[in-house]
Amino acid sequence: MPRVLILHGPNLHALGSREPEVYGHETLADIERRVTALARELGWEAEFAQSDHEGVLIDALYQARGRVQGVVFNPGGFTHTSVALRDAVKGAAIPTVEVHLSNPQARERFRHDSMISGVALGTVQGFGVEGYLLALRGLAAHQPRGASS
Amino acid sequence: MPRVLILHGPNLHALGSREPEVYGHETLADIERRVTALARELGWEAEFAQSDHEGVLIDALYQARGRVQGVVFNPGGFTHTSVALRDAVKGAAIPTVEVHLSNPQARERFRHDSMISGVALGTVQGFGVEGYLLALRGLAAHQPRGASS
Amino acid sequence: MPRVLILHGPNLHALGSREPEVYGHETLADIERRVTALARELGWEAEFAQSDHEGVLIDALYQARGRVQGVVFNPGGFTHTSVALRDAVKGAAIPTVEVHLSNPQARERFRHDSMISGVALGTVQGFGVEGYLLALRGLAAHQPRGASS
Amino acid sequence: MPRVLILHGPNLHALGSREPEVYGHETLADIERRVTALARELGWEAEFAQSDHEGVLIDALYQARGRVQGVVFNPGGFTHTSVALRDAVKGAAIPTVEVHLSNPQARERFRHDSMISGVALGTVQGFGVEGYLLALRGLAAHQPRGASS
Amino acid sequence: MPRVLILHGPNLHALGSREPEVYGHETLADIERRVTALARELGWEAEFAQSDHEGVLIDALYQARGRVQGVVFNPGGFTHTSVALRDAVKGAAIPTVEVHLSNPQARERFRHDSMISGVALGTVQGFGVEGYLLALRGLAAHQPRGASS
Amino acid sequence: MPRVLILHGPNLHALGSREPEVYGHETLADIERRVTALARELGWEAEFAQSDHEGVLIDALYQARGRVQGVVFNPGGFTHTSVALRDAVKGAAIPTVEVHLSNPQARERFRHDSMISGVALGTVQGFGVEGYLLALRGLAAHQPRGASS
Amino acid sequence: MPRVLILHGPNLHALGSREPEVYGHETLADIERRVTALARELGWEAEFAQSDHEGVLIDALYQARGRVQGVVFNPGGFTHTSVALRDAVKGAAIPTVEVHLSNPQARERFRHDSMISGVALGTVQGFGVEGYLLALRGLAAHQPRGASS
Amino acid sequence: MPRVLILHGPNLHALGSREPEVYGHETLADIERRVTALARELGWEAEFAQSDHEGVLIDALYQARGRVQGVVFNPGGFTHTSVALRDAVKGAAIPTVEVHLSNPQARERFRHDSMISGVALGTVQGFGVEGYLLALRGLAAHQPRGASS
Amino acid sequence: MPRVLILHGPNLHALGSREPEVYGHETLADIERRVTALARELGWEAEFAQSDHEGVLIDALYQARGRVQGVVFNPGGFTHTSVALRDAVKGAAIPTVEVHLSNPQARERFRHDSMISGVALGTVQGFGVEGYLLALRGLAAHQPRGASS
Amino acid sequence: MPRVLILHGPNLHALGSREPEVYGHETLADIERRVTALARELGWEAEFAQSDHEGVLIDALYQARGRVQGVVFNPGGFTHTSVALRDAVKGAAIPTVEVHLSNPQARERFRHDSMISGVALGTVQGFGVEGYLLALRGLAAHQPRGASS
Amino acid sequence: MPRVLILHGPNLHALGSREPEVYGHETLADIERRVTALARELGWEAEFAQSDHEGVLIDALYQARGRVQGVVFNPGGFTHTSVALRDAVKGAAIPTVEVHLSNPQARERFRHDSMISGVALGTVQGFGVEGYLLALRGLAAHQPRGASS
Amino acid sequence: MPRVLILHGPNLHALGSREPEVYGHETLADIERRVTALARELGWEAEFAQSDHEGVLIDALYQARGRVQGVVFNPGGFTHTSVALRDAVKGAAIPTVEVHLSNPQARERFRHDSMISGVALGTVQGFGVEGYLLALRGLAAHQPRGASS
Repeated sequence: MPRVLILHGPNLHALGSREPEVYGHETLADIERRVTALARELGWEAEFAQSDHEGVLIDALYQARGRVQGVVFNPGGFTHTSVALRDAVKGAAIPTVEVHLSNPQARERFRHDSMISGVALGTVQGFGVEGYLLALRGLAAHQPRGASS
Repeated sequence: MPRVLILHGPNLHALGSREPEVYGHETLADIERRVTALARELGWEAEFAQSDHEGVLIDALYQARGRVQGVVFNPGGFTHTSVALRDAVKGAAIPTVEVHLSNPQARERFRHDSMISGVALGTVQGFGVEGYLLALRGLAAHQPRGASS
Repeated sequence: MPRVLILHGPNLHALGSREPEVYGHETLADIERRVTALARELGWEAEFAQSDHEGVLIDALYQARGRVQGVVFNPGGFTHTSVALRDAVKGAAIPTVEVHLSNPQARERFRHDSMISGVALGTVQGFGVEGYLLALRGLAAHQPRGASS
Repeated sequence: MPRVLILHGPNLHALGSREPEVYGHETLADIERRVTALARELGWEAEFAQSDHEGVLIDALYQARGRVQGVVFNPGGFTHTSVALRDAVKGAAIPTVEVHLSNPQARERFRHDSMISGVALGTVQGFGVEGYLLALRGLAAHQPRGASS
Repeated sequence: MPRVLILHGPNLHALGSREPEVYGHETLADIERRVTALARELGWEAEFAQSDHEGVLIDALYQARGRVQGVVFNPGGFTHTSVALRDAVKGAAIPTVEVHLSNPQARERFRHDSMISGVALGTVQGFGVEGYLLALRGLAAHQPRGASS
Repeated sequence: MPRVLILHGPNLHALGSREPEVYGHETLADIERRVTALARELGWEAEFAQSDHEGVLIDALYQARGRVQGVVFNPGGFTHTSVALRDAVKGAAIPTVEVHLSNPQARERFRHDSMISGVALGTVQGFGVEGYLLALRGLAAHQPRGASS
Repeated sequence: MPRVLILHGPNLHALGSREPEVYGHETLADIERRVTALARELGWEAEFAQSDHEGVLIDALYQARGRVQGVVFNPGGFTHTSVALRDAVKGAAIPTVEVHLSNPQARERFRHDSMISGVALGTVQGFGVEGYLLALRGLAAHQPRGASS
Repeated sequence: MPRVLILHGPNLHALGSREPEVYGHETLADIERRVTALARELGWEAEFAQSDHEGVLIDALYQARGRVQGVVFNPGGFTHTSVALRDAVKGAAIPTVEVHLSNPQARERFRHDSMISGVALGTVQGFGVEGYLLALRGLAAHQPRGASS
Repeated sequence: MPRVLILHGPNLHALGSREPEVYGHETLADIERRVTALARELGWEAEFAQSDHEGVLIDALYQARGRVQGVVFNPGGFTHTSVALRDAVKGAAIPTVEVHLSNPQARERFRHDSMISGVALGTVQGFGVEGYLLALRGLAAHQPRGASS
Repeated sequence: MPRVLILHGPNLHALGSREPEVYGHETLADIERRVTALARELGWEAEFAQSDHEGVLIDALYQARGRVQGVVFNPGGFTHTSVALRDAVKGAAIPTVEVHLSNPQARERFRHDSMISGVALGTVQGFGVEGYLLALRGLAAHQPRGASS
Repeated sequence: MPRVLILHGPNLHALGSREPEVYGHETLADIERRVTALARELGWEAEFAQSDHEGVLIDALYQARGRVQGVVFNPGGFTHTSVALRDAVKGAAIPTVEVHLSNPQARERFRHDSMISGVALGTVQGFGVEGYLLALRGLAAHQPRGASS
Repeated sequence: MPRVLILHGPNLHALGSREPEVYGHETLADIERRVTALARELGWEAEFAQSDHEGVLIDALYQARGRVQGVVFNPGGFTHTSVALRDAVKGAAIPTVEVHLSNPQARERFRHDSMISGVALGTVQGFGVEGYLLALRGLAAHQPRGASS
């Protein structure tokens, strides 16, 4: 059965309590429950990780090599500045879908291009927590039928 | 039953025969068939339009007011330059999801920010034709339950 | 009796119902009624046209040659991007006053210099619908006394 | 009876003798005579001031508070550089119409955005001396009926 | 016998009467006569079209596929802004030579890079009407000998 | 006993009545009272000046030479444009602390680098009226113990 | 009694020995002693932390929530590049004052806008170690009287 | 006998005591003595003025019309920002030579193009006080022989 | 009989052996043979020169004055940087057509505007060696009938 | 005997398996073996460290102070963005040579200036693994003869 | 007796015949005659050189070391692009005055900062041929009295 | 035995006497002696050339084709501006290592990207004269074993 790593970047542990008018009231645990249900329906197994540390996220991507068939990655505040995470996504070479809860372009002026988009399989943004489910569907649709770990 | 308008911009009538190594072999008819199937499954009705004329696309958005509950819009080559289309998306005030088959940032140098993203409900890019289906799911998830035309 | 063409660009057919908190509740028909009254008072005849199509606006400017003595033109969303309309205003060579309902500089970031101002007789902006009347007065003041078609 | 302050910025005292091929032969006295006549017709009283000193113009705007119902302001060479005048127009909070005799965009390269437009009620440019009359009409049309000092 | 489409963009119908001191006194009919003569001499057949509508020009390029062996295209005011026309030239995949009557760099400040050059076979500019003839020669020299429709 | 000059630039005489939601309700008189109290506590004597005139501010800086041991200067709208004030701060060579009530970077788009910062002892911004007190403290901490006029 | 967290970013552990001609000879221990004394005088309790790790700083901000009433934060070399720290300051929602020993604008070319300023209560820069004390005063002045943990 | 006005801008009254390592120890009085001697030798009469006020400098230029045959103008810190002074030099229409003691390009980063150079007869910079003498020679060489007031 | 100078800039002596997949296998000798044949057919005489030295090219242009009636110039790597060659083309004042074998815009990022285009009679690019022949035809068409050396 | 620290930044642990067509098949262990051999030959002792964590790299540089006489540092993806690492190289004040396996300019668009070069002893790039050996030689040549730990 | 080298850059041999409406009718020989006369009057000896070759100009500067006491240099079209000439002026270390006949800022758009000004003793521009004489006076005034070769 | 060409660009003949505090006291002859010794040790033969003429350097690169197996090139002041030299390095197609004595980024503001790096085998900078030896070692390591001329 194929596996997916749902990887959350900095500040996301505070989801549900930080700026709820922007990011909503759902927490990482809610996301975990909903993603797990959909993964099961699609015949996948899901695992979850979060870190505020750039280096820990890089390590997580390399350690997932050979063990998972896809990554759904919300790089949070590292989206726009981390060349090292870009290199890690490219180097680990696991199909990775980038997720953002809101539309980064619609945020503050200093946010521009994503470092991750260019090396990602695809990007889903602006749908809030729903975006994780869309990303998983996109990943599964991309997965060759019959492929498994 | 809620309705969605799938609106394609310039050059997209040639989908399937134009640069297939970039855009794939599926045609607008294939998209129509797949979107129609998913729409039915989600309890929606879908309609389709394509034009190479900026003015026709503007008119289509206004004529859809009061008749459809959402738009999935691929603005093609107008993405980066049309202030008038941006005004139309904002003026028509129908929830609109922007779709791009590929990653515009990854294309030629003169392509930068989308004029449409700032006024769209969300954006889906990089999934090829699959993106239209993700966009429709995102739109439906956004639609208040029980709402219909 | 001299004639003036009042020419409206893209999205303006929706005036009165689109973002009324910005553009007010008056419609194109209201503008037509008020401009016609003032034109009569000044001894002019007024005609009106609107289009969302850049090409139709270009054609309208050329077809007005030899038939009208002035144009009051609100280029809407084409203001900032259309080199072709600039060429048409210059090529048709009819005295043209540019009108904007609101102050374009006070709007979104991607709006900068007008393509039209450099080839227009003058510009009036920020007075809402009243601006069309001021533009017509400015045009009439510019018209040599006794000139007529 | 409502009052309007017609305020002229630097170098305008030389109007009529400085570059007449660009600015025409009318002087400040001619403008005063024509504006006074129109003001009377519209039921307003007009007063006039000119200064080459940025500080004097700032003071004039604050001293007009509570005494005049509108300002017609030609900021001349300060248009493009004076943040302090922008603050004064905003701080004095009197409805102010910006006037330019010619089209600033059509002038030298270092002239770009106006500092004043963003805080003005409206802008009139390119009509020569006639522009002061249009500005006064725009101001009067903006003035709630029956309002007086 | 191979065919060539001579395609003229916006404002060019006014050639001969619009700014003749810049563009000369020859009209589209004169160009047609001279190009037809040279085409005959080179063993080609020529057809002609002009439009002020971006969408009509896009459609013309796609409709010419399989029917003509080359296009000589003067994109006029769309040269610098139309991503959609660039996509159409690339998508229609007919050898296309770009022509400009005058030297665009020598014109106004807002004119910079051509959107079309990067996807054209070649560019000819600055020779006035003569440029259409040079473009046709360049196209014919590029055509493999013996190729015909 | 050391002396400090508190120098206010253009528009600051209106403090308390101009945009109070941004700048608060305290007036220059309130600042004077609070600064005088703190100065006394720190063993300093304070004097105060305000002007909307760039030249008056320049003169004030030179006339303070040899008479005061420090300046607390809020250059207001001249912050971003006045090279002459920068030269005066440098030329008068009195330790000068720059104060801004709010965060200039957080204001409008045309406000960027301060001309004054590079020649000032330090900068305090974002604390409203409190900032004058912090600036005075910073100045006093910088003053060698036992120094007096 | 209210508490404040004094948080130092990367490289600051070397204070006193690294480039003393720029940053002076005082060490973190000296700062701790001086800040502790002032805090006591103002009726506050102070705690201290330093890290070269962006993730550790982010965690420190979240763990301080509900436990401290203010933060004095010197983000060091992360000032100009860390969107993640900006998000953490905003997410933790504790009043935070940004401190810089020297004037960052006056440093090397690649240093521009601070990521932190826009979400901070205020900024103090250019006073060396004294700046921490000014920052604490500014924070205390901002603290509603009588508030305590 | 022709007359020349030597006009000094802001901060120049401090010459000799302000940054002498940059600007030397000579004062305005020294310049006056040396210029007067050279003027006499060349058959000219010289008069002198200095002001820190932009408006006073503008007035001085207009009041010199018809009375002097040339101006030697050191615009000091207004060099790079004053459009109003540029307009005044152009409007007064007296042959004007711009002088700078040092090389402005070699100074701080925010100093770029001179506003005055484009409307001046010529520019002399980098020679210290000697530059005023060179400027006067250049002006006299430019003066048609035999011309006098 | 009129004469034309075919002038080749730096690196072009290596034509045929340098990057033949980009520039083809034809050499300067091949160009010479083909251009000579066409020149004869058009009643012109052709001469040829190549240099890697900017100064030699400048001298060649001046020495051709009064001796040739036209120049066909491929400035190679100097196209984008040489102000001196631009001055020479303008100063020598011989009608000059600029030729490029390939499309410079389609090459590396640091190549932008041509220094030469603005002073050339016309430009031909993208046709490989054929471009020299088109340039000669364009030059001959431009030559007044009956003109000869 | 002098010591050198060979410090590898993020993603370099994957050397040999990540994009081998770009970075080759040699691993960190191979580098260690080759560098150790050369160090012995030059009379140096070498130690090695790698981390994906920016903070760990900063700490490593400070901990090496007083213990090693030189650093050979490949900052990987942090090269272009880390102000904090730049501060650390400068603050630790150990002679440091920057190494890159490939030519950063020849890589993706968002990679420009190195943050490290300005504070490094020298830079070696483009020689693959060989570059570490050249860097060590450059460091040793720079080391005063007879100097040892 | 001190010596000065008058050095002319590319295209200047054509002075007097090239664009005389801009550069006047005087030739290099006229300049030589006038400069020689003034040099004699000032007790200097003058020598002259001109070249269109950047390398020849560089060599001339080095060969003048130890032989001349000053250089008056008109770098012509190399002014804005030649880093190598800048290095040569700096490397030869002879006091050098930069001369331009006209005002480079007032010329075409691609001409901006001079490469030479930053390493020159001073700059004289806008006085035509007179500028060479002013430059020589400035140089002589700078020369310590009694100095000779 | 393989051969290497050591090629020095403009101003380098003055090495040792020009700005010795930056570039040291060693001359080209010293470099020649040290490089010759190392070349012999590595089994290579070295030849040397220097020129201030861009064209001579271009010619030297082409004439070395087929005769040398590598080039060590210090392009001096041409580094940042010469497209023609870049074309020559690419066109001659000999493995070339770029050397700079100092760190170009650490020099003046107008020096940015090297034109040469993108087409070079590698770059060595900041090691002074030692850099030539490192460059030669890098070149030799790159040379396939057993290859000889």
